[in-house]
Amino acid sequence: MVDILHRIGVKGSSPDEVYEALTTLGGLSDWWATDTSGSVTVGGVLEFRFEPGGIDMQVLELTPGERVLWEVVGGPAEWIGTTVNWEIKQEGEYAIILFSHVGWKEPVEFMHHCSTKWAVFLMSLKSLLETGTGNPDPRDVAISNWH
Amino acid sequence: MVDILHRIGVKGSSPDEVYEALTTLGGLSDWWATDTSGSVTVGGVLEFRFEPGGIDMQVLELTPGERVLWEVVGGPAEWIGTTVNWEIKQEGEYAIILFSHVGWKEPVEFMHHCSTKWAVFLMSLKSLLETGTGNPDPRDVAISNWH
Repeated sequence: MVDILHRIGVKGSSPDEVYEALTTLGGLSDWWATDTSGSVTVGGVLEFRFEPGGIDMQVLELTPGERVLWEVVGGPAEWIGTTVNWEIKQEGEYAIILFSHVGWKEPVEFMHHCSTKWAVFLMSLKSLLETGTGNPDPRDVAISNWH
Repeated sequence: MVDILHRIGVKGSSPDEVYEALTTLGGLSDWWATDTSGSVTVGGVLEFRFEPGGIDMQVLELTPGERVLWEVVGGPAEWIGTTVNWEIKQEGEYAIILFSHVGWKEPVEFMHHCSTKWAVFLMSLKSLLETGTGNPDPRDVAISNWH
């Protein structure tokens, strides 16, 4: 079992502001997929649509200002059944985000790609909260021939 | 055992150009640590110096245009004994880099930070090769309160 792990800090932001960007269609569409729809409540399914395809995430847990947990129920075969976990906390003037995408069966090349791509989208989330502007798909930063 | 994995593609670059950026003091100082010194040959030790401290990497393997392997012999306690592996290949007009930093004992918060930070430095390497300008420390992109 291999995991994707990341940590960023959003300067001048609070855990509640991060939580809002992770749990509202408006927030999610401003840093991850412009085309985001679905249900944001526990048990609901969020539908993220990208140029090459889509990802459906069922919301498993919502603890305001602290934790968000999704399970992938639709998307690339390697993603199905994996979970995406967001832990949020305050450290001084930074809202800290500990991110993990866990449950990958094998450390395939696509997993390497997704690890880097998550980092780039986390920087988009940081930018959104710090400057008001993120870089969601389709205007996100391309990292390779796999976009 | 948990690993940091990444994949980027450098448009319009060749594996030999990537290899040069990973195996020369000039290349390394243009995308990772401006203050890079030491020996670039197998068995030698590269000395990367950052604002908060330094990292020493012993060069374990060099296969031109294909592979570079380093072992961390000095630096943060969590890094000692870990290895940093670079695999390079061509795919169409992209030079693809598969990166792994393996041998971490625990998925500590610092590992989350280093995973994101490696992604940002890989984007610096990509920028260096695609545009001629990277973002090495100390003018690199800050990702959190841990820089």
